[in-house]
Amino acid sequence: MRHSASHVMAEAVLSIFPDAKFGIGPAIEDGFYYDFDLSRALTPDDLPVIEQKMSEIIRADLPFTHKELTKEEARKLFASQPYKLELIEEITDDRVGIYKQGNFVDLCRGPHVNTTGEIKAFKLTNVAGAYWRGKERNPMLQRIYGVAFDTQRALDEHLKRLEQLEARDHRRLNKQLNLYITPEEVGSGLIIYGPKAGRIRAIVEEFWQHEHFANGYELLYTPHIGLSKLWETSGHLDFYQENMYSPIDIEGQLYYLKPMNCPFHMLAYKSQLRSYRDLPMRWAELGTVYRYERSGVLLGLLRTRGFTQDDAHIFCTPEQIEDEITEVFRFSLKMWKAFGFDKYKVYLSTRPEKSIGTEEQWLQAEEALGKVLQKENTAYEVDRGGGAFYGPKIDIKIEDALGREWQMTTIQFDFNLPERFDLVYTGADGKEHRPYMIHRALLGAWCRFFGLIIEHYAGAFPVWLAPVQAKLIPVADRHLEYARKVEAELKSHGVRVEVDDRSERMNLKIRQAQLEKIPYMLIVGDKEAENNSVSVRCRSGEQIPAQSLADFIKTINADIANRV
Amino acid sequence: MRHSASHVMAEAVLSIFPDAKFGIGPAIEDGFYYDFDLSRALTPDDLPVIEQKMSEIIRADLPFTHKELTKEEARKLFASQPYKLELIEEITDDRVGIYKQGNFVDLCRGPHVNTTGEIKAFKLTNVAGAYWRGKERNPMLQRIYGVAFDTQRALDEHLKRLEQLEARDHRRLNKQLNLYITPEEVGSGLIIYGPKAGRIRAIVEEFWQHEHFANGYELLYTPHIGLSKLWETSGHLDFYQENMYSPIDIEGQLYYLKPMNCPFHMLAYKSQLRSYRDLPMRWAELGTVYRYERSGVLLGLLRTRGFTQDDAHIFCTPEQIEDEITEVFRFSLKMWKAFGFDKYKVYLSTRPEKSIGTEEQWLQAEEALGKVLQKENTAYEVDRGGGAFYGPKIDIKIEDALGREWQMTTIQFDFNLPERFDLVYTGADGKEHRPYMIHRALLGAWCRFFGLIIEHYAGAFPVWLAPVQAKLIPVADRHLEYARKVEAELKSHGVRVEVDDRSERMNLKIRQAQLEKIPYMLIVGDKEAENNSVSVRCRSGEQIPAQSLADFIKTINADIANRV
Repeated sequence: MRHSASHVMAEAVLSIFPDAKFGIGPAIEDGFYYDFDLSRALTPDDLPVIEQKMSEIIRADLPFTHKELTKEEARKLFASQPYKLELIEEITDDRVGIYKQGNFVDLCRGPHVNTTGEIKAFKLTNVAGAYWRGKERNPMLQRIYGVAFDTQRALDEHLKRLEQLEARDHRRLNKQLNLYITPEEVGSGLIIYGPKAGRIRAIVEEFWQHEHFANGYELLYTPHIGLSKLWETSGHLDFYQENMYSPIDIEGQLYYLKPMNCPFHMLAYKSQLRSYRDLPMRWAELGTVYRYERSGVLLGLLRTRGFTQDDAHIFCTPEQIEDEITEVFRFSLKMWKAFGFDKYKVYLSTRPEKSIGTEEQWLQAEEALGKVLQKENTAYEVDRGGGAFYGPKIDIKIEDALGREWQMTTIQFDFNLPERFDLVYTGADGKEHRPYMIHRALLGAWCRFFGLIIEHYAGAFPVWLAPVQAKLIPVADRHLEYARKVEAELKSHGVRVEVDDRSERMNLKIRQAQLEKIPYMLIVGDKEAENNSVSVRCRSGEQIPAQSLADFIKTINADIANRV
Repeated sequence: MRHSASHVMAEAVLSIFPDAKFGIGPAIEDGFYYDFDLSRALTPDDLPVIEQKMSEIIRADLPFTHKELTKEEARKLFASQPYKLELIEEITDDRVGIYKQGNFVDLCRGPHVNTTGEIKAFKLTNVAGAYWRGKERNPMLQRIYGVAFDTQRALDEHLKRLEQLEARDHRRLNKQLNLYITPEEVGSGLIIYGPKAGRIRAIVEEFWQHEHFANGYELLYTPHIGLSKLWETSGHLDFYQENMYSPIDIEGQLYYLKPMNCPFHMLAYKSQLRSYRDLPMRWAELGTVYRYERSGVLLGLLRTRGFTQDDAHIFCTPEQIEDEITEVFRFSLKMWKAFGFDKYKVYLSTRPEKSIGTEEQWLQAEEALGKVLQKENTAYEVDRGGGAFYGPKIDIKIEDALGREWQMTTIQFDFNLPERFDLVYTGADGKEHRPYMIHRALLGAWCRFFGLIIEHYAGAFPVWLAPVQAKLIPVADRHLEYARKVEAELKSHGVRVEVDDRSERMNLKIRQAQLEKIPYMLIVGDKEAENNSVSVRCRSGEQIPAQSLADFIKTINADIANRV
């Protein structure tokens, strides 16, 4: 039906642009598109006109008819359609299929619905440029996207969801909230976090560090570059080089930007003799890594070329792995809960065909992972053979407010690096043993995490994270003095507060604060100044009658403490 | 006298190595050296033998005699001394001077003491390799260093100080305390901070951030690489390239590791329209920068190739500069005080010959700097013409426990970058104005700061910074259970505590904790377990009679809160 809708759209376009040249028009998830070569650029205003035409065609309930032609016949039929001719040449069969409805005929394998009347509910969503066959040296065509569903209700629901997704798109919200910038002069996929994002990040990092210290982790800080020798030992130059940047030459030696923090932690382990008494050791780092991504796949905060990972490496004995995994798993869920995420899906990935490590190691590690998940009463899917070549892993996908899943947490065994760096500890038996090592990232890359929470909260950060927690809005200029007094008082209690001291109308100031998604607007006028109080308006629109300043401080401090 | 001592040393060496070839032997601060080309490598054991010979020569009280020769005569005299011959060729005068004592004669301008007996107190300190004339392609000579003073007492004091310096050398203390590593595989001048250093750094950074937020700063986070275009705009490629590393190629574009954070902050400023109402804006970043240093000048934590600076940029109006500088100056002293530094020297550097910016800007900025220092009753030295080409500055040198000065804090005007990036704000007059910009770093580079505090505290970090604040030492194995109980209790109060659970003698454990410079050793035996108390031994050696656990928690929490 969606494919048929694309033909109907093509017919509608043909009726408006008789000299249109047609590319291809497939069905896609939830809808369809068609690529056109037209005499002028389309604008969003064209879409309702095309929709109108489409509706007429659908109402006419025209049959879709199929026919097979010889190539020669097809060439004649599409003589004025160069893109179709190109496609015909590539067909290896002798005969080619066409479909026709109304006065539109298309080179097409089908199948289609019987008549245009079977297309129930559709909408054209947008126009975009698309190179013919996706190749940059080909002509740029105009692609019209549409969606189609069996019922108007399903379509409406879909459109509503699209609207929600768009309203929460972090790139769109960023324009409103001024969180980060990606200036062209810095380079693609590199993010500058401005003051508001910086505040949120500092709060999250402090929280993250405290939680890690409380969970027996220590922090490492390592450089962003390392000699080629290091990446040879770690194997990155052999197996990961396509994701690394070209080297930097310092006095004839080659240095690489780090794509991972691991090798530095291996060296730190190796720098001292380790005994079984020292284990487990849990070493975390908020390390910024740089990985190559094609510029075409970069996407806002979600796919970048440089990002800070909340990495950790846990070194332990075989006897400790179950406890350590339990600990990490619980820790991870606790962290996500703190940010308001309590739905997730868990995946356990086992030994792939190509892998290193002994049978015994894999069995022991996989068993430990499974055992922990069962003990924790966690449903999980097993992805047989889906582990990394260096060890099995647990992945946790986090569900956001719109029900989307985000792959964030990963808990991975690594049998490779301890081997490559020849890590050992002295056991209780006085002999040397190889430690087990677990890599883990809980929140994952900071940029993706930040993108996720922007979209999850729709930019309305909870009070503990909000860069500005309260905006003071004096009713008139004469209330500015009281507003400043309140500001000082709130600041002395650690509240992040701003005064809107512009000589503007109160409603405009409220609207502005609302747009900035500031949790509390505190309106102060004569009455409030008299009673040492504030009138509170929440960003939800809820209004709370004037309360004493002391009470408001209690309210907001409770919000912060409870992270709501 | 020190120069004369070097001749005496040369004579002594000649008596032991008759075929010695002589380089040069000047006086230096506190002493002297001489470079020799000898038939075998010297060892520290040679020094007492040479000292013995020197003492004999001094006791003999031989006169120093001066003579002038023609170059031809000199060439004959030094026929077997190739280095001296080389020096003779470079002398432009017709005649050259020589000095002689005993059977040693040297090419020398003098002056010297009258007789060797005037050399009162000396000591040879060490041997090191030194290229002839400091050039790597020349032969490597052996340099013997010595010190010489007018009195034995002055010499003894000097040697004692050298001993203190060596005992506090952060590289030496690092071997004992395991703070950081510099593995060869990572590359010269790049530091990996291990768990203990990481803990200290996390504490300092958290403190630093809180103080910055309290002082009206916001935090930025920016990438470690940027496109060549950015560094062209900032002028770094024109004026700073020799300190930058070779570029990285990404999809045909060149990226450079950042040597400074400034250009990113400029772009953040530029990303929005700014009004006089937004100013001042204070933006800080703990940004890790990479700068080229020759491998020969790298020195532990003090001179590295990559370091994290506590940078900030303050954007303000001309009317605000005095307040802003006052604020930064006070803030800086407050930060240093928190780490136990309250002695410092202040330098004000003014316009150099080559500089950019208008006369008016320089006058206004220099006047503001001077005015602030006077208002703050701070003595300062003026370094006329010592400013950067882009603006005048205040430097603060911090004095450490040994009275050494460390250049750490810098507060600089910058007329250059706001111009290059065309930064503007809309004034109250509705017109565009150029903001004043102040760069500042308070603690400076983290690595140097860390090196400084290691040496200042001699590795005995105050309780609030100590990676491990208390070590629990069970008298015998049977007290381990109580030790674990105390450990849990202390941890629940946020105290960083470790238990020495080895089956070793108590004295050995105490000695070990002492070597690790842990502030408190808590010894627990029968009596302590009975009374729920701990016997406290400070790292100073001071012993405190058993006190209740609750009292000890109060003590240590007061230490932490007061940062002592």
